[in-house]
Amino acid sequence: MNYLQYNAGTGSKENWVVREAVFDPRYLGKCESIFCLGNGYLNVRSALEERYVGETRDLLVTGTFNRADETEVTELPNLPDITNVDILLDGKRFRMDAGTLQEYRRELDLQTGELSRHVVWASPEGNRVKLDFFRFVSKENEHLIGGKLEITPLSQEVKIGIHSGIDGRVTNSGAQHFLEGSKRVYEGEYLEMVSRTNQSGVTAAVHTTHRVFLNGKAQTVPALPVISRRTIENQMEIVVPAGETLVVEKLSCVHTSRDLAYEKLSSEEAAKRTAADGLSVLRTARQEGYDRLFEKSREAWRLYWEPRDVKITCENGFDQLALRFALYHLAIMAKTDDSRVGIGAKGMSGEGYKGHSFWDTEIFILPYFMFTDPGAAKTLLEYRYHTLGGAYAKAKEYGFLGAMYPWESAWADDGEVTPKLGGADVVTGKPIPILTGELEQHVSADIAYTVWQYWLMTGDREFMERCGVEIITQTGRFWASRLEWNPEKKQFEINDVIGPDEYKEHVNNNAYTNYMAHYNMELALKLIRELREQEPVFYTGLCARLPLEETEREISEKLDLIYLPQPDDRGLIPQFDGYFGLREIDLTPYKDRETVGTIYNDYNAEQINGIMVLKQADLLVLFYLLDDLFPAELKEKNYMFYEAHTLHDSSLSKSTHCVLACDLGLSEQAYRGFTRAPA
Amino acid sequence: MNYLQYNAGTGSKENWVVREAVFDPRYLGKCESIFCLGNGYLNVRSALEERYVGETRDLLVTGTFNRADETEVTELPNLPDITNVDILLDGKRFRMDAGTLQEYRRELDLQTGELSRHVVWASPEGNRVKLDFFRFVSKENEHLIGGKLEITPLSQEVKIGIHSGIDGRVTNSGAQHFLEGSKRVYEGEYLEMVSRTNQSGVTAAVHTTHRVFLNGKAQTVPALPVISRRTIENQMEIVVPAGETLVVEKLSCVHTSRDLAYEKLSSEEAAKRTAADGLSVLRTARQEGYDRLFEKSREAWRLYWEPRDVKITCENGFDQLALRFALYHLAIMAKTDDSRVGIGAKGMSGEGYKGHSFWDTEIFILPYFMFTDPGAAKTLLEYRYHTLGGAYAKAKEYGFLGAMYPWESAWADDGEVTPKLGGADVVTGKPIPILTGELEQHVSADIAYTVWQYWLMTGDREFMERCGVEIITQTGRFWASRLEWNPEKKQFEINDVIGPDEYKEHVNNNAYTNYMAHYNMELALKLIRELREQEPVFYTGLCARLPLEETEREISEKLDLIYLPQPDDRGLIPQFDGYFGLREIDLTPYKDRETVGTIYNDYNAEQINGIMVLKQADLLVLFYLLDDLFPAELKEKNYMFYEAHTLHDSSLSKSTHCVLACDLGLSEQAYRGFTRAPA
Repeated sequence: MNYLQYNAGTGSKENWVVREAVFDPRYLGKCESIFCLGNGYLNVRSALEERYVGETRDLLVTGTFNRADETEVTELPNLPDITNVDILLDGKRFRMDAGTLQEYRRELDLQTGELSRHVVWASPEGNRVKLDFFRFVSKENEHLIGGKLEITPLSQEVKIGIHSGIDGRVTNSGAQHFLEGSKRVYEGEYLEMVSRTNQSGVTAAVHTTHRVFLNGKAQTVPALPVISRRTIENQMEIVVPAGETLVVEKLSCVHTSRDLAYEKLSSEEAAKRTAADGLSVLRTARQEGYDRLFEKSREAWRLYWEPRDVKITCENGFDQLALRFALYHLAIMAKTDDSRVGIGAKGMSGEGYKGHSFWDTEIFILPYFMFTDPGAAKTLLEYRYHTLGGAYAKAKEYGFLGAMYPWESAWADDGEVTPKLGGADVVTGKPIPILTGELEQHVSADIAYTVWQYWLMTGDREFMERCGVEIITQTGRFWASRLEWNPEKKQFEINDVIGPDEYKEHVNNNAYTNYMAHYNMELALKLIRELREQEPVFYTGLCARLPLEETEREISEKLDLIYLPQPDDRGLIPQFDGYFGLREIDLTPYKDRETVGTIYNDYNAEQINGIMVLKQADLLVLFYLLDDLFPAELKEKNYMFYEAHTLHDSSLSKSTHCVLACDLGLSEQAYRGFTRAPA
Repeated sequence: MNYLQYNAGTGSKENWVVREAVFDPRYLGKCESIFCLGNGYLNVRSALEERYVGETRDLLVTGTFNRADETEVTELPNLPDITNVDILLDGKRFRMDAGTLQEYRRELDLQTGELSRHVVWASPEGNRVKLDFFRFVSKENEHLIGGKLEITPLSQEVKIGIHSGIDGRVTNSGAQHFLEGSKRVYEGEYLEMVSRTNQSGVTAAVHTTHRVFLNGKAQTVPALPVISRRTIENQMEIVVPAGETLVVEKLSCVHTSRDLAYEKLSSEEAAKRTAADGLSVLRTARQEGYDRLFEKSREAWRLYWEPRDVKITCENGFDQLALRFALYHLAIMAKTDDSRVGIGAKGMSGEGYKGHSFWDTEIFILPYFMFTDPGAAKTLLEYRYHTLGGAYAKAKEYGFLGAMYPWESAWADDGEVTPKLGGADVVTGKPIPILTGELEQHVSADIAYTVWQYWLMTGDREFMERCGVEIITQTGRFWASRLEWNPEKKQFEINDVIGPDEYKEHVNNNAYTNYMAHYNMELALKLIRELREQEPVFYTGLCARLPLEETEREISEKLDLIYLPQPDDRGLIPQFDGYFGLREIDLTPYKDRETVGTIYNDYNAEQINGIMVLKQADLLVLFYLLDDLFPAELKEKNYMFYEAHTLHDSSLSKSTHCVLACDLGLSEQAYRGFTRAPA
C-alpha cells in the first residue's frame, strides 16, 4: 500500500496525519475504509464527494439492525447518503480520473478527526481549477456531519454547478433495508428524508442544508429542489471568476428511533422525534456553520486524546502513527455509553461483517478499553449480559444447558445471526456453507475469560454481581453439558468444532477450545465456591435466579477429566486431533498476497481441511491468553512451527503473532508483525 | 443530440443504422435507451459492458410485476444484470473516459437487431488496444441474449482480465424487488442465479456462460468462480500478444415463472422449470455460439421486416431511418402473442413509467399494429379485456357504474397502479401529488374508441362478441353514471378532471374528455341497438351476463344533453371551462429545452393551473381522433392558437401536431414536427 504515506504530518502534526499522496481508483474501497470518520454513534465511510465506479457510500448507525428479507440475516442498514456532491464545471462533471490531476493529497488528521483533500485539476479542455474538501463527523454532537468544499477557478471564469442532497437509493450490496421515505424541503434550505426499515421498523431521519459563500461573503444562490425516487437534492449554479473562491458548506444530521435518547419512548413517539430533532439540530448548526462546528468537535477530540494518546519512542514515525491510527479507529467504532450495542467486527467502516459482534470484541478490543476506559469496557460487557437471552436459547436449541453465546451477535433480541452461505466452492460450484454459527463455540469461553479479566483489573463488584457471575457460571455450565465422554480414553472431549483457525472445520479436541472451555469451567467453579463461602447472603439470593448448585455439580464432576492436548516429543501441541498427520503443501503462493483467502482459488474447504495450513494459529492465541500455563520454550517451538504454516488470512492473526514473538524475545519478528498487522 | 448520426449506413445498410459517433458520458442514459435491444419478451437497456458513473443497467421482462414494498406501486423489476463485463488490461480497468479514445463508433443495426461498438483506445500509459463489442437479444429464441468481445492489443502484449457474470445487486432506483437468490456454477462453465420477487413471487432464472477464443481457436482458460452477495461471476486471465485477437463470447438466457409457456403450471412448478429450462437452453446455445445464434436471430428479423418495412421517398435519409427506428422500438416493446401483458409507456427500455400501460397504447401505438399486424392489435386489446375487473372495481370505488379503466395498468389483477407522489413542488418543498390516477379519466373512452377502430378495420366478429361489446358498452355505462347535471344550464357536464394536457388539473368540461365520453356513449348505444335488432339470439345471451338494458337506458336518457364545448366568435374551442381567461406569460424560456418540464422550476402545479400554457394540446388530439366532426377552418385556427401555447413537454405531443399540420396542408410545420417528434 505504498500509495499511502502513513508517516505524514510535521511539527505539532508529526505522526498524526494519514496521507494518501496519489489518487488511484483501484484503492477506492481501501481508502474509504481507512479514512472512515465517526463517533461511535455513526460512521461515514469516506467515499469521495464526486462519484466513481467502484465506490461504496456507507452511512451506518449503531444498533439500527434490520433484516432486509427472509433470505438475509440482520445487519446494519446503509442509511441514505449525504456524502455525494456532484460538481459541474462548465456543465461537465468534475472527476479526478479524467483530465489531469496536477496536485493531489488526501489527509486524515487523527488528532482533530478532520478529513481533507487538496486538488489542482485541469479539465480535458485545460481549464485549471483548485478544489479543497473538508469533512468531519462531530465528536461533540454525535448526530452531526460537516462538509465543506472550496472551489477556485485558476485559469478562467467557471460556471459551477452543485447538485447535492440526500440519496436513499444506496443499498447494502443490493439489499434495500428502507421503505421509500417521506421527502420534504423546508424554507428552500433544509432537505429532509425520513424512512423506516422494512422489518425492524427503525426510523431514520436524515437532514441536510447548504451554505454558500463567495470570497467569504454569504451568497443567496437560488437552489432548485429536485425530488426523485428515493432522492432529494438542491441544484445550484453560480459563475465564479478566476482567482475567486466559492465555498459550499454541507451540514447534515442523522437521528434514528433507536437512539439512546429515545430509549424510553414508544417506537411511534421515537419516530416522530427523529424528524423534529433533526430539523432543530440542523437549524442551530446552520447558524454556527462548518468552522465553528468543527472547532467544537476538535475540542472534543482534544479532550479525548489528552489522557489516551500512547507515545512511543521509535525510529520510524510510522510506528507512532500506526498506534494512533488504531486508537482512532477504536474511538470511532465504539459507542461506549450504550450497552444495547456491541462493536462490529469491521467497526462501522463498511458493510463487511454486517455490524455483527464476534469474539474480536472480547479478545482483541476489550483489553484496550479495560486499561484506558474501564467504563467503556463495562458497557461492552453489559452488551454481552443483554444478549444472554440469545445465548440461553442457542444452548437449548442445540440440546445443551447454560449459555452458549452466538458466534455473531447483533441487536440483543436477535440471538445467533451468522449467515449460512458464503463464497463459491471452487470444486462444486456451489456457495460454501458457513458453519461458524454452529461450530465455532469458543466465543462463550472468550467472553467469560474477559469478564474475569475485567474483574481482576477493576474490582467492579457491582458489575460482577449484576452481570459477571451469571455470564461466567452459565457459560461454564454450557461447557459442562457440551463435553463428550470418550469411554475408551476415559476423558471428556469436545468434538466437531471450529477453532479460531477457520480453515479447519469439524475438528475434534481443538486445543484452543478445550483449554479455554476448561478455564471457563474452572472460573465458574471457583466463583461459585468463593461466593458461597465469602458472600453467603448474596449467594443465596443469587441461587433464587441462577442454577448455581447444578452448575457446580455438573462442572465439578467433569472438570478434571477434560482432555487438554499435550505436547508431543517435539514439544509441539497439536491444534486438534490428527493435525500433525495432515498433508504438507508449498504455501508460498498463498503467503503475503494482496488479498486474503487466495488458497480458496485452488482448493475447496474440504480439501483445505486436509492440508497443514492455518488461517491463524490457535495455539498462539491460547498462549497469549493463558500465558502462565505454558513454558517459554514450548511456546517458542510452537510459535516457529505454526507461524510457518499460517497464511495470516484473518486480520486478527498478525497481532497475536506479534505479541507472542515479543514475549519470546523474537524482536525482529515481533516488529515485522507490528508493522504489518492491520490496524 | 448532434452526437448521434441518425443517417448512418451505406449500401444495403443505408438508413438502417443508428450511429453514435462520439462517446460522451453525459448521454449515457439517452443512448442506453435509444440503443435498447429486445424482443417483446425481454428488453436489455444498452449500458456499455464496462461500468460508468451514471449508467443504468436494466433487464426487464414483460409481465413480471412486483410491488417492492407497501410504499411503492407495482412495477417491472430489474432482473440481475448480465451486460456488465469488467475488462482489465494489465490490471487496470478499461474505460473510455480515461486514456485516449482514438476511434469510436457505436451502431445499432435496425435490420438485424445487432448492437456493435468499435473502439481503438490508448491507455493513459500509451498502450493501444482495439476493442470490438457485439450484442443482440434473440428474436428467434426470446430467452437468449448474446454478447461478444474482440480484444486486439496493437502496441504490445497485454494481460487481459475478464470479470463477468450475473449481478443481482441492481435495483429499480434503490428499490430491491428480488430476494437474495440461489447461486451456482455448473461444470465451471454455466453460472446460474435464481431469485424470486418479494411480493408477487415471480421466479427469475438467469444463466450465463463464456466461450473464449484466441485467433479463432477455442481456449480453455481457467475461470475462477467468485460468489459474493447477490453476485456470481467468472474471473479469467490470459496474456495476448500484440496483433492477436482474444474473443470472449458471453451467452445468457432468462426464464421467469410468468413466462407464457408456464401459464398452466402452478407457480412452484413454473419456478422449478425456469432453472432447468434456462440451463438446458444455455447448453444448446453454447454448442452453437454467438455467430450461429445471431444468424438465427437475424433471419427472424429479416422475416419480421419483410412485410413491415415502410419505405418512403425522402430527400433526407434521416426520415427513412427515423421511421424504421420507430418500427424497431415498436417491435421490441410488444409481446404480441401474450394478452396477459400490455405495453409500457416507455416500452421496456428503462424503469420510467414502471412498465405501466397508459392511453398511449390505444391512441398512439395500436393504429400501427391494426394496420400491419391485426393479430398483435387483438392481443393488446384482449389485455384491456383482461383488466376489466380492475375497471369495474375502480368505477365502484368512485361510486360509478360500468367500467372505469385504470389510468396506469400493470398485471391484470392489479387494477389502478398510478403512483401517488411525484417530484418537488418548488413553492411548498413537498412532493407533488400525482392526481392522474383519480382525475385523468379519458382513458376509458380511448380504449372504447380503439376497440371500435379495430372492429372497423378488421371486422373481427369473434373478438367483438367475446370482448369488444363488453368494453364499449360498459365504458359507455361508466360515462353515463359519471355525468353531472347542471340545473342552471340544463346540461350534463364532466367536472374535475385532467385531460391529456396534464398541466391543468381539476378542470371542468375538458373538451377532449367530454367529446370522447359522448362518442363512447354513442358507440355503446349504437352497438346495443344494432345487436338487439340484427343479432337477437346473441343479444339475449349477452344480456344474461351484461346489463345492456340498463346501459341503454342510462345512456339514452343523457346522451343528447351532454355539453360539448363549442367555438367562440374567434372560432376557438376552449380546452375547458374558463381556459381563455387564464393568464398569458412569455413561454419562450420553456420552449425547446433540453429537458421537459422546466416550467416547474419556476412555478408549482397550482400556479401553472392558472397560466395559459399546455403540456400537449387536447383539442388537436380530439381533431385527430374525431376527424369528421370539425371543419378544416376551425381545426386550423385552433391549431395555430394551441400550438403557440404548447410546450410539447409530453413525448406524445409533437406527433399529434405533426399529423394535424399535415391534414391541414401545413407541410412545413408538419415536417418540422416529424423531424422532432420523439420516435
